[in-house]
Amino acid sequence: MGSVRNILFIMCDQLRWDYLSCTGHPSLDTPNIDRLARMGVRFDRAFVQSPVCGPSRACYYTGRTAFSHGATWNFVPLPIGELTIGDYLAPKGVRVAVAGKTHFRSDVDGMARLGLTRDTEIGLKIVEGGFEPWERDDGEHPDPIVSPTLPYNAYLRAHGYDSVNPWNDFANAAEGPNGEILSGWQMRNASLPARVKEEHSETAYITNRAMDFIRSAGAAPWLMHLSYIKPHWPYMAPAPYHAIYKKSQMPPRNADASEKINPHPVYAAFMQMDAASTFARDEVRETVGPAYMGLIKQIDDHVGRVLDMLEEKGLMQNTMIVFTSDHGDYLGDHWLGEKELFHEASVRVPLIIYDPDSAADPTRGTFCDKLVEAIDLAPTFMEWHGMQPAYHRLEGRSLLPVLRGEDMSDWRDFVFSELDYSFYRARLTLERKPRDCRIYMVRNQRWKYIHYTGYRPQLFDLQEDPRELRDLGESTEHAQVRETMRTKLFERLLARRNRVTVPDDVVEERTNKVRQKGIIIGEW
Amino acid sequence: MGSVRNILFIMCDQLRWDYLSCTGHPSLDTPNIDRLARMGVRFDRAFVQSPVCGPSRACYYTGRTAFSHGATWNFVPLPIGELTIGDYLAPKGVRVAVAGKTHFRSDVDGMARLGLTRDTEIGLKIVEGGFEPWERDDGEHPDPIVSPTLPYNAYLRAHGYDSVNPWNDFANAAEGPNGEILSGWQMRNASLPARVKEEHSETAYITNRAMDFIRSAGAAPWLMHLSYIKPHWPYMAPAPYHAIYKKSQMPPRNADASEKINPHPVYAAFMQMDAASTFARDEVRETVGPAYMGLIKQIDDHVGRVLDMLEEKGLMQNTMIVFTSDHGDYLGDHWLGEKELFHEASVRVPLIIYDPDSAADPTRGTFCDKLVEAIDLAPTFMEWHGMQPAYHRLEGRSLLPVLRGEDMSDWRDFVFSELDYSFYRARLTLERKPRDCRIYMVRNQRWKYIHYTGYRPQLFDLQEDPRELRDLGESTEHAQVRETMRTKLFERLLARRNRVTVPDDVVEERTNKVRQKGIIIGEW
Repeated sequence: MGSVRNILFIMCDQLRWDYLSCTGHPSLDTPNIDRLARMGVRFDRAFVQSPVCGPSRACYYTGRTAFSHGATWNFVPLPIGELTIGDYLAPKGVRVAVAGKTHFRSDVDGMARLGLTRDTEIGLKIVEGGFEPWERDDGEHPDPIVSPTLPYNAYLRAHGYDSVNPWNDFANAAEGPNGEILSGWQMRNASLPARVKEEHSETAYITNRAMDFIRSAGAAPWLMHLSYIKPHWPYMAPAPYHAIYKKSQMPPRNADASEKINPHPVYAAFMQMDAASTFARDEVRETVGPAYMGLIKQIDDHVGRVLDMLEEKGLMQNTMIVFTSDHGDYLGDHWLGEKELFHEASVRVPLIIYDPDSAADPTRGTFCDKLVEAIDLAPTFMEWHGMQPAYHRLEGRSLLPVLRGEDMSDWRDFVFSELDYSFYRARLTLERKPRDCRIYMVRNQRWKYIHYTGYRPQLFDLQEDPRELRDLGESTEHAQVRETMRTKLFERLLARRNRVTVPDDVVEERTNKVRQKGIIIGEW
Repeated sequence: MGSVRNILFIMCDQLRWDYLSCTGHPSLDTPNIDRLARMGVRFDRAFVQSPVCGPSRACYYTGRTAFSHGATWNFVPLPIGELTIGDYLAPKGVRVAVAGKTHFRSDVDGMARLGLTRDTEIGLKIVEGGFEPWERDDGEHPDPIVSPTLPYNAYLRAHGYDSVNPWNDFANAAEGPNGEILSGWQMRNASLPARVKEEHSETAYITNRAMDFIRSAGAAPWLMHLSYIKPHWPYMAPAPYHAIYKKSQMPPRNADASEKINPHPVYAAFMQMDAASTFARDEVRETVGPAYMGLIKQIDDHVGRVLDMLEEKGLMQNTMIVFTSDHGDYLGDHWLGEKELFHEASVRVPLIIYDPDSAADPTRGTFCDKLVEAIDLAPTFMEWHGMQPAYHRLEGRSLLPVLRGEDMSDWRDFVFSELDYSFYRARLTLERKPRDCRIYMVRNQRWKYIHYTGYRPQLFDLQEDPRELRDLGESTEHAQVRETMRTKLFERLLARRNRVTVPDDVVEERTNKVRQKGIIIGEW
């Protein structure tokens, strides 16, 4: 392979780990993503750092946990001092661009303090989280907040979708028998086709834009973040994808009536939220499920288009390809909708990495059951570009040695995730202050421990209870397990990377060296 | 009092909590600092966030722990996104200036990333940690690193001290019987007078410069950080202060031979460092002690000059005055020199606050035994200026209600401090990596628990063993106490303020409000 190295970083939004054929879905067929898995490694146990779009993505992009970087929820800007993969790779000549969603909120107060505006090159980079906004589109454009200059809307209008906000009125709406608009915001409509042709839908459009980028990028190295908005709600697929799957092809609801008996107070509060109480009804999940599957099927087809193009252009030899998601979707499991909490449906994601280097040949088509975190990608990208990952800031670990089959016997033995639920109605239900709404998960191969500020913990035995139906948070016989897992959480917090302004090798150089500056300590 | 409010924030460097007459020193007489204590409140149990200059000061200035802000040691820049008291007070029209030391290291990489240079107003503010460098002087100017434009050196030369570096050759050197220069860097010379007249010494000069500032400040509100370099080493006092105290006036060494038996490994490594092994000799502490006391006595006299001036100018009625230190000095206690570790000699500091407001009249001349932390000052300053302290970032708590005698029954029940010892020779002795050199202390009114990454903890019973001579870190009967204290540390880490870009009231406003943006979640 040549010296130019590219990265295609594909992310879906709200794609559960188990809704691909290669991760075991019984009826969903995703041959193109499966093809990628055959070319690379499928990481079977990959977890996001926070099961909500904004903080999860900020962790992927910074390589740091939300505990460290501080973008704890969707509305919470990433502090200006935090670096992203763009900051790391751009100085190496890599063009880091996005087509689709980043959910990045810029630190406008931090920018004002430092006199920065988005009119400057540096300011724009900060505003866009280090990505060149080749086609930034966060994908939620209801009328009250839609930008009048949204490119996708201009595109739709140019293709005959006549509306002020065709995103809302066509791409995410269906039509009733009398021509009335049926909004994708209402899940009752999820079985209907969107009012756009498939080739004009968001997934097709964003794929096209990523392909435009790749075509135009030339010989300079790039990282293209192809970041799909789907299968995130509004759950509305264009024809024919709206009708490919039937409700019978959905795995049964993973829930048990016993979960509602004496539930953990925070879990109980989440079960009271709209998405949960709606998804508790069978007709809802049976209506939404097939649309969700159709949206995934559509993504798979478009991933196939991209893979075909990379092959045609000879780029398969020098392009690392990553496929993952920012979090899952309960789809009614555990009597919940949406994501946020820490059951596998929410916190576990698919992760496939194709490394074209011949050193990775031995692992092609294998799966890896190591515990992997979203923050492992940033150092993987750096190492792939021949850089020493900035481990004084980065809190994950490069997966490159795993991809190349090296001995990784010292791999981590637990993963970490967290949530700041202060913005949710659950906080009001529970009458808590914004600062007291923290949840932390640590999970190893057997146990999942969930720590709540102000409440008892939860514990699940993933070996005896893989469906996570029995909360052992109050089980006296599991007190020692909880204590062990709590200690792991404690150690994880203690090890937070905070000395971000001085790398370890500089510490090594400067250790015990003040005397060279003429500063003489302790001499008689 | 008028609407203009000033703050005089006096800090000594390396002044132990117990080396003032008002804090119980048996022979040191500090009538001016005592006078301040009679006007205000003396906080008897005040602790620094890290017993080393750089990180301790960064905590005072940011109101955040080093665990959070990341300036973990002297050479470690404060990340550019961290705000300091200058950032908070300047927008209120307060001129925030320093005369003396801040030990602030600016984040040059962070500035370069954002295109900032010190030539601009914003850049200079970042470089100086939010302080106007009225007379920035960090006080360590040995020949290899002295700035050719150091104002204090120009001042000394103008007063006839003829040398390239009169700081080194006059202010911090003595003279032998044959006119030879005897360096202050050698502690054997600490009993001799410095080669400068008292009125030209560092303490006098920095006081003059602070007084110049106050005189010239006019009617606009200010915060003057009068930040003395002394009694920090080089331990060299000008006449007559070098000879005021005798070795017999020093309290006896607080140490016991038993401390050297099976000591904690990190403590053992620190006992092997130069300052410790030198201070282990009686002649060293008996030579240094009187000089150290003389330097404090000199500071006290100069604090008296400033108080007199404030009185003369009628500024006592609208100026809050704080007197404290950045950490202590072992002076041979526990067989250690310098500071760094967590015995009271190192981590505990004097703290006196005078609040001119009549609301504070009931507490004048009292002492307060609440557990107070260095990070409490930043919110105190904000509240004193009528601002709501930015508690989504600030990790301390305003002392203003304490100063005003309000009910504070919900005050914290433990204090927190920490050290990154990666730059010390101790790290090499212990063969550890830079990332694994973390120590955390939690102390309540009775117990002091010290957590070491990779080692057993230490525990001291301050009630039964106030001199901290018996390490209960391995005592089986104290296992439950250690567990309780460890939980306090865990809770402290969990509560780190990381959502720095969104205040709590904005979270309150936005809770459960996405629907107002047209984003409809969970609707059938």
